[in-house]
Amino acid sequence: MSGITLTPIGLIRTPYQKTEGMPIQPAGAAQTPGQVIVDAAFEEGLDDLDGFSHIILLYQFHHANGYDLKVTPFLDTQRRGLFATRAPRRPNPIGLSVVALTRREGNVLHVAGIDVLDGTPLLDIKPFVPAFDAPAVTAVGWMAGQLDRTASTRADTRFQQPSGHKD
Amino acid sequence: MSGITLTPIGLIRTPYQKTEGMPIQPAGAAQTPGQVIVDAAFEEGLDDLDGFSHIILLYQFHHANGYDLKVTPFLDTQRRGLFATRAPRRPNPIGLSVVALTRREGNVLHVAGIDVLDGTPLLDIKPFVPAFDAPAVTAVGWMAGQLDRTASTRADTRFQQPSGHKD
Repeated sequence: MSGITLTPIGLIRTPYQKTEGMPIQPAGAAQTPGQVIVDAAFEEGLDDLDGFSHIILLYQFHHANGYDLKVTPFLDTQRRGLFATRAPRRPNPIGLSVVALTRREGNVLHVAGIDVLDGTPLLDIKPFVPAFDAPAVTAVGWMAGQLDRTASTRADTRFQQPSGHKD
Repeated sequence: MSGITLTPIGLIRTPYQKTEGMPIQPAGAAQTPGQVIVDAAFEEGLDDLDGFSHIILLYQFHHANGYDLKVTPFLDTQRRGLFATRAPRRPNPIGLSVVALTRREGNVLHVAGIDVLDGTPLLDIKPFVPAFDAPAVTAVGWMAGQLDRTASTRADTRFQQPSGHKD
């Protein structure tokens, strides 16, 4: 299949300068404030967004190199299939975070509960709509029983190392 | 900023051969069955996924050409900022759907409630985890009052036409 080329539309500013010690999900970032700085050329596209309490950010895991198809997630001690985890090292390293939108100021979105590295390249913004995005979940697989630790678990460097093999 | 090149990891099979008449969100697709066919090279990465009732699919809006920063969504009669909508014609045409995972069969995921075109290129799969992905939403902006129509609204061709201007 042919490749798809994406170009960042802005970047995300956060207090996190390195992966180590970073919250592993917005749940662990609590009210961590951040700014989504959208390139001025796209500013008009942000109109009407400030009516939504939450937004979906799609971004590049720009510090992730390569991937392995089996990984040991931060929340677990066993190896799991990569696609059953939220690990950043993926065939297509696209991250997704749902954050609270607190204020729009021109081309800048002030958000809360952000869990990405400072300088993360932004790919897309979508409004979070419960009717579309919040189904009636009945099972969370291997994460059952692990989620209590989300808020207190911090990242380490395990997903940063360049990987020679990509099995 | 430099470009990011993605390569599809599979494709999505659905009953929808054309945009016109397609549900506009999984809510409108009800129990529409589909298959996510992951390239065999990635099959091992699907392990453990079948413990989750719902998954997030990231894919390419492969029929979308160009974009406009103001659009009239299917659910509205007014022009809205592009990023406050889920329209497929976007600077980075990445789509996101939350679907029910009914069964895994090797490299094939059987899903329900799928709302994309048949043959859609798959970019990533993530487990849906309410603690990460389902915040306490308090506002849905311009969609308030419109969502009742989601299930009955069908797409038309408005987001398909190639656009000469990209304002």
